[in-house]
Amino acid sequence: MSLIVQKFGGTSVGSVDRIEQVAAKVAKFRDAGHDIVVVVSAMSGETNRLIGLAKEIQEQPTPRELDVLVSTGEQVTIALLCMALHKRGYAAKSYTGAQVSIVTDDSFNKARIKEIDGANIRADLDRGVIVVVAGFQGVDESGNITTLGRGGSDTTGVALAAALKADECQIYTDVDGVYTTDPRVVETARRLDKITFEEMLEMASLGSKVLQIRSVEFAGKYNVPLRVLHSFQDGPGTLITLEDNSAMENPAISGIAFNRDEAKLTIVGVPDTPGVAYQILGPIGDANVEVDVIVQNVAQDNTTDFTFTVHRNDLAKAEAILRDTAKKLGAREVKTDAKICKVSLVGVGMRSHAGIASQMFKTLAEVAINIQMITTSEIKISVVIDEKYMELAVRALHTAFGLDQPAAK
Amino acid sequence: MSLIVQKFGGTSVGSVDRIEQVAAKVAKFRDAGHDIVVVVSAMSGETNRLIGLAKEIQEQPTPRELDVLVSTGEQVTIALLCMALHKRGYAAKSYTGAQVSIVTDDSFNKARIKEIDGANIRADLDRGVIVVVAGFQGVDESGNITTLGRGGSDTTGVALAAALKADECQIYTDVDGVYTTDPRVVETARRLDKITFEEMLEMASLGSKVLQIRSVEFAGKYNVPLRVLHSFQDGPGTLITLEDNSAMENPAISGIAFNRDEAKLTIVGVPDTPGVAYQILGPIGDANVEVDVIVQNVAQDNTTDFTFTVHRNDLAKAEAILRDTAKKLGAREVKTDAKICKVSLVGVGMRSHAGIASQMFKTLAEVAINIQMITTSEIKISVVIDEKYMELAVRALHTAFGLDQPAAK
Repeated sequence: MSLIVQKFGGTSVGSVDRIEQVAAKVAKFRDAGHDIVVVVSAMSGETNRLIGLAKEIQEQPTPRELDVLVSTGEQVTIALLCMALHKRGYAAKSYTGAQVSIVTDDSFNKARIKEIDGANIRADLDRGVIVVVAGFQGVDESGNITTLGRGGSDTTGVALAAALKADECQIYTDVDGVYTTDPRVVETARRLDKITFEEMLEMASLGSKVLQIRSVEFAGKYNVPLRVLHSFQDGPGTLITLEDNSAMENPAISGIAFNRDEAKLTIVGVPDTPGVAYQILGPIGDANVEVDVIVQNVAQDNTTDFTFTVHRNDLAKAEAILRDTAKKLGAREVKTDAKICKVSLVGVGMRSHAGIASQMFKTLAEVAINIQMITTSEIKISVVIDEKYMELAVRALHTAFGLDQPAAK
Repeated sequence: MSLIVQKFGGTSVGSVDRIEQVAAKVAKFRDAGHDIVVVVSAMSGETNRLIGLAKEIQEQPTPRELDVLVSTGEQVTIALLCMALHKRGYAAKSYTGAQVSIVTDDSFNKARIKEIDGANIRADLDRGVIVVVAGFQGVDESGNITTLGRGGSDTTGVALAAALKADECQIYTDVDGVYTTDPRVVETARRLDKITFEEMLEMASLGSKVLQIRSVEFAGKYNVPLRVLHSFQDGPGTLITLEDNSAMENPAISGIAFNRDEAKLTIVGVPDTPGVAYQILGPIGDANVEVDVIVQNVAQDNTTDFTFTVHRNDLAKAEAILRDTAKKLGAREVKTDAKICKVSLVGVGMRSHAGIASQMFKTLAEVAINIQMITTSEIKISVVIDEKYMELAVRALHTAFGLDQPAAK
């Protein structure tokens, strides 16, 4: 018998029908003898409806009152899910964040969990009660209602699993697991049985939006086994854990992520002097534009070229700032390109396998794709290429790194 | 400078526009230098929407979870009203029932308030903050969310006013005060400046649905001056207080109430033996049918006639039971009449004025209205008459008892 925390997002509880389906799934796990804590989000659309009401009154709603308002969304869901469990003959009890209590700091709208008192929940579990907790919310030390920010229900699930020392935290979503790459792009993409926290973080930050990055970090920090599963289909999902000791047998690459939300800016012919990188990126950061890939080429003739990428929505803003900077620094030129994409290989196996990068570059050369930028981290290699070659690149790499094969069980 | 508790019901906060209007009204009282505690209901329609969701799942929703669910309605309103006050530059802070804390017993859906800890609120008031409290809800001693039952927001207002020793509890509604009778029936009906708690109780129980009976009882018990006012019009409203010492100068009658929701049942020719009243009414009560007026005529030939009224919706049920009883008792006949109405004079002045009853009967005789039943209490005389004479009776009595005249100020 295990203790399992199960988290269902807004789409999974988006109607009374879906709440009934969630109740049936929870009941099945309870029937198997597990102790169950369920964490739920607001019914899909509800949070936006509430924020809409607030914005009719205040363009920037008071943060404290906004949390009082939107926290009602999850409170509705916990009550309805308990009713659906009662109807099926299961003992179940709902808890708001305050009732648990999930104590956070007092940063309204984006609070961080400080402490969870699981005593109430443990007592209920001992009596065989299914505990249903409102995600996304907590209470500060003065008793004010706080929320963890969008997507915070995942964090609630992981934090509860850590506090209760649960055997597993299951995150139910609209996909049946984490894939080697996007199945809409590569038909042969396959579900991974396992992935490490680090790999999941790289995949998530590159646009595989299965899980909130914060909840993965949190799960890694407290070593809570996470499992991604489909809300309404059966299947083993993907387990996300600390690196397996049998890592040497792991394939070098776990997955391929890609992202076409970025644009590239290059400032050409800037003097190659100390501090020039700061002079270029300082004003960009001051304007709250986030920079992703940064590449500086080796200097020639005492000048250098400096290239970086930003979100496409920020391109116009970044370009205006960069042209200003170019004048001040006496740079030759500013060039921009919105038609790029970033393709990344992710895998902890990369650490112990030489030659991943060269195999990647060879594969892309064989299909005649020009690489514009390269960056690497311990478990990731990313290249920036022309947007129109994205699918071609991802498919070629997926095959070249053996991801098309069925996983060894 | 006074401390005023102001309660606004669901219609008064039924839209963002109306919440803005309420904020403007609250602000005006704050500008006049008063300390303000505002109690609000859920936006009109919201409680029914939530109950509808619950009933899609359970015909009889679990009481504890139903309270978790519906209490979100007021929580939405307190947040929105605070935002509207902030927009106008006023310091304001919201409180759920649990945050106050309003401690109740654990009778979910119909909890009774046991204790209010007003320390948080007092501290805010001392700092000039407008306090906005969710009506209708509390928390039991184990931290479970409870609700006071429908209309419970009035009770929250009165209980807070009592706990905080407020100078006045203002109940905002869709009428501008308590009237001598229904202005839709008698054009010359006029707003009362003052009425006693006892009179208000009689008026309320007779169908003048301005205030919840429970809140009036509560206000009377703790001697909280209540004022009924219009949400969106200016005016003094009607003040409800303990009996004035100058009662001798009061007019004998404060108002005329009426009710056409009842039906009359008569069992004719029952043996006039001890216990017969119980044998007749016992089965009716067992079927959860409430009985209002009861009249037993003097016995003739060792048999008597027994007449009582019930709500019209219960007539068929009561009649079936009574026919059964009639057989058992060997009664001659059962007669029913749904086309009746009850007209009542209410006034504390009645106690010290003889002849009110005879003047009432004389007035009705002058317009040729036959009286079917009569009951009296210390501050009320009610007659049951044919429904079609209701308007005629009310108008004649309104004039005869001098209620058409403008009130002495």
